[in-house]
Amino acid sequence: MREFELLEHVYAANAELARHVRIGPGDDMAMVDLDGGRLLVAVDQIVAGKHVDLDTTPLELVGRKAITRSLSDIAAMAGKPVASLVAVTLPPDFGSKRATTLFDAMRKTAADYDCPLIGGDIAIHNENSHPLTCSVTVLATPSGEHVVTRDGAKVGDGVYVTGRLGGSLLPDGTGHHLTFEPRIKEAIELYRHLGTNLHAMIDISDGLGRDAAHIAEASGVSIQIDARLIPCRPGIEWRQAASEGEDYELCFTAPGELPTNMFELEVTRIGEVFDRKEPEKSSRGEAGGGSRGVVFLDGASELPGDELGWQHES
Amino acid sequence: MREFELLEHVYAANAELARHVRIGPGDDMAMVDLDGGRLLVAVDQIVAGKHVDLDTTPLELVGRKAITRSLSDIAAMAGKPVASLVAVTLPPDFGSKRATTLFDAMRKTAADYDCPLIGGDIAIHNENSHPLTCSVTVLATPSGEHVVTRDGAKVGDGVYVTGRLGGSLLPDGTGHHLTFEPRIKEAIELYRHLGTNLHAMIDISDGLGRDAAHIAEASGVSIQIDARLIPCRPGIEWRQAASEGEDYELCFTAPGELPTNMFELEVTRIGEVFDRKEPEKSSRGEAGGGSRGVVFLDGASELPGDELGWQHES
Repeated sequence: MREFELLEHVYAANAELARHVRIGPGDDMAMVDLDGGRLLVAVDQIVAGKHVDLDTTPLELVGRKAITRSLSDIAAMAGKPVASLVAVTLPPDFGSKRATTLFDAMRKTAADYDCPLIGGDIAIHNENSHPLTCSVTVLATPSGEHVVTRDGAKVGDGVYVTGRLGGSLLPDGTGHHLTFEPRIKEAIELYRHLGTNLHAMIDISDGLGRDAAHIAEASGVSIQIDARLIPCRPGIEWRQAASEGEDYELCFTAPGELPTNMFELEVTRIGEVFDRKEPEKSSRGEAGGGSRGVVFLDGASELPGDELGWQHES
Repeated sequence: MREFELLEHVYAANAELARHVRIGPGDDMAMVDLDGGRLLVAVDQIVAGKHVDLDTTPLELVGRKAITRSLSDIAAMAGKPVASLVAVTLPPDFGSKRATTLFDAMRKTAADYDCPLIGGDIAIHNENSHPLTCSVTVLATPSGEHVVTRDGAKVGDGVYVTGRLGGSLLPDGTGHHLTFEPRIKEAIELYRHLGTNLHAMIDISDGLGRDAAHIAEASGVSIQIDARLIPCRPGIEWRQAASEGEDYELCFTAPGELPTNMFELEVTRIGEVFDRKEPEKSSRGEAGGGSRGVVFLDGASELPGDELGWQHES
């Protein structure tokens, strides 16, 4: 069962959204109008055994990741955090002390990013073998009138990534996927410098190949990435860096030259936006199925993007 | 492990909430300020085997209940629905067809109550034995400047309930807990008629005894309920009606006489708000532990409210 197919079905049936819904499902966050104000909102979740290994991961980092995954969605929209809510289901033998540790970590992480935990629900599973699940809803406001979505990439734009990619999950279950910094501050700085020229953005959770494809599909363009330019973490080969996911760096497109020294974190131009080759723009329904619209060039050959990145089925 | 104790711990540590948080955790919904607009937000969840029995419940009703439980929180605050988001974890053998049925039911229910589904996340469990979990976040706006919370009950107020209570869960797992109407429309009508006189309100999810106690504790008052006045569903005795929960009717307090014929649904005066007998107002931390502050009178004896209602540990 694929998340995308299922969600696409829901989205398709949801075509007649109320007028106050400004951005419906399908981007990193949805947006609604509220008496003149605008609100960004998203939900994400972690499931023990899928996104975190409770045997090797301190609960402090489990709680941190639950929150930062959703915060990364705020970064993807260049949003400003407002507040967060959690819904947690615990195995009956989880224990109050461990539950408190988990909740404290979530509360503290949320507060650290100015996204205070303002509500929650706790349920208890019937069986000790049933896994901890933790869904986190985040609220944010856009940085300005222009809202940065996935669908604004334009032909001629440069394609950029922040930071370095790959190696987020170490063999022992630990790694950067537990300790990453959601790029909220950097996204807001990008917005401040680029304004409406910040054409499209996404956070890299599924892997560069797949996430760049989300931009390409949503924007109706094609993206060429020069594999040799991908900034990899030490010891990581580009194919791995482009496919593993859970980097939680930003991938964005913008025209012209970027200002230098926007912030301390490195920003690397890795490719360019081109006309779509396909005879017509693909429907959204096909977007999640592969990485059509993205090609990696390594100097010798072309590699279709759909051979990289993973199906986000978890 | 008790939800209240754990959440209270989080709330206590959360004392220094950002200024834009107008209502923090502890009520049916939290509220934040957004550039002048105000937003109510809450999350609730259902877990298969705990809140619904998948063996006896059509998936259409599972999806309906997932949404309506959260919509009932909007009713409790007299809010106007804005939008909803879901995070679902499915067993791997759940199947696309059943998942589609579930999501269609959630989408349709949300749309029926003007609370369109605008975002979601789907995760897949590792084991077929791991249960479906479904968390639903709802957004709403207050009906007016006065926001109806649990903590506004005043000495001399009448205590009222909408509809009829008890018998929500039939022995075969079906019943009103699956098919109830969240009282959004009625709550807005109450607000329209009573305005700032709608002092306190809650939806009856844990049982009248416990939920009236939430009002009493939060408001620092005591509530006396005349058990003989409790409107029970056919064949239900008052103790059962006051303790079972999952009625999703409204319990509220207001001074003076209520207007008649506010809406078709019956509204029954069942009690009155009195001074708190305890030497000092209990701390929030004690609120969840029992039903202190509520007494049921049946003409012959007094029954403390904490002998009714159930610990919401699920």
